[in-house]
Amino acid sequence: MMPEIAPDQMIEQLRWRYAVKRFDATRKIDEETWSALEQSLILTPSSYGLQPWKFIVITDQELKDQLPAISWNQKQPQDCSHMVILAGRKVVDTAYIDRYMKSVVVTRQLAADAMDGYRNTLVRIVEQIPNHLDWNARQVYIALGQLMVAAAMLGVDTCPMEGIDTAAYDKILGLEDDVFTSVVGCAVGYRHPDDLQASAAKVRFDRKELVEYR
Amino acid sequence: MMPEIAPDQMIEQLRWRYAVKRFDATRKIDEETWSALEQSLILTPSSYGLQPWKFIVITDQELKDQLPAISWNQKQPQDCSHMVILAGRKVVDTAYIDRYMKSVVVTRQLAADAMDGYRNTLVRIVEQIPNHLDWNARQVYIALGQLMVAAAMLGVDTCPMEGIDTAAYDKILGLEDDVFTSVVGCAVGYRHPDDLQASAAKVRFDRKELVEYR
Repeated sequence: MMPEIAPDQMIEQLRWRYAVKRFDATRKIDEETWSALEQSLILTPSSYGLQPWKFIVITDQELKDQLPAISWNQKQPQDCSHMVILAGRKVVDTAYIDRYMKSVVVTRQLAADAMDGYRNTLVRIVEQIPNHLDWNARQVYIALGQLMVAAAMLGVDTCPMEGIDTAAYDKILGLEDDVFTSVVGCAVGYRHPDDLQASAAKVRFDRKELVEYR
Repeated sequence: MMPEIAPDQMIEQLRWRYAVKRFDATRKIDEETWSALEQSLILTPSSYGLQPWKFIVITDQELKDQLPAISWNQKQPQDCSHMVILAGRKVVDTAYIDRYMKSVVVTRQLAADAMDGYRNTLVRIVEQIPNHLDWNARQVYIALGQLMVAAAMLGVDTCPMEGIDTAAYDKILGLEDDVFTSVVGCAVGYRHPDDLQASAAKVRFDRKELVEYR
């Protein structure tokens, strides 16, 4: 397959991206565009393909109006089009691994026992991971990265939001006793024309400090 | 700005991506393409813009030949074009925050004291983060996600690699007593035509299990 996107076009979109401070509350993401962004979440790669996450997308305005109070008073969750809460699984247990292996067998039309060896290895590996939520939270951040880039490619704005009260989000979303817990948020929508942050120069350390060649 | 990439084109590239098992050791990434991928690393967003990372790119074949032994015997680091080690800062201290604030002031041509209030707030926030490396590792995974999507957009293959001996990588890269430590790897290059994994159906849980709307 030929690359479909030119390097300079991609970089232009990545430079265009910034963490939106003020969304245009009147602009909503259309269905085709959102559907592509939903796919970008679903297609995110994860360790062993385990997809240890759930993405909760808040579009209901009444619910969104309650979010600044549990987001360090930031307005992005209220004004954006789609507020995404990226939640991680608290535990990857054997039952979950089995459920995943079953989906591999079904999707790839394999023999029922084709994944048994891999499954047993994976059970042993996962048992040795000290903190499943920490591990899964890292995977969730891959999804956060994929979502922000995918949005930028489509000319859709985002604001990654660590500054949220995850316990309060769990409560409002009914996740208190769930296998998932809120890890990080991402507001998705369109920048307000008056958002001064859009024109602020992007701050990065010098290339030589950030990248080293061996 | 108009979106430059059509939603279905982007999704096609994301579907084309898979975790490469076997790279074509004869194919190297050209300079223009790599330069765009380097930019995608540099442009990765991070919490408060702190960029708590260093990206170490290994292209020297003699060094690459030593990597399978410290990568669970996986050959991707050896056969790929550019092996990227994404390293995270162990600690975000006040000196580092000050260095960052200085770069904001310089880049945005602000008054010398313009960032003082923000700086003081950030120092207090960062003091309360229990484990800086855990926090920074999450940021590193944003970069991992951004790199993999950026590569996919350009028709470049990747393999994310958690299965590396990070302590041994630190040793081989001279990071043992450094402020940075290896967190995760990403092999970048081109799939071998005989990599069977390329044609395996992508396994994902049902959309309704992964995404919920409120």
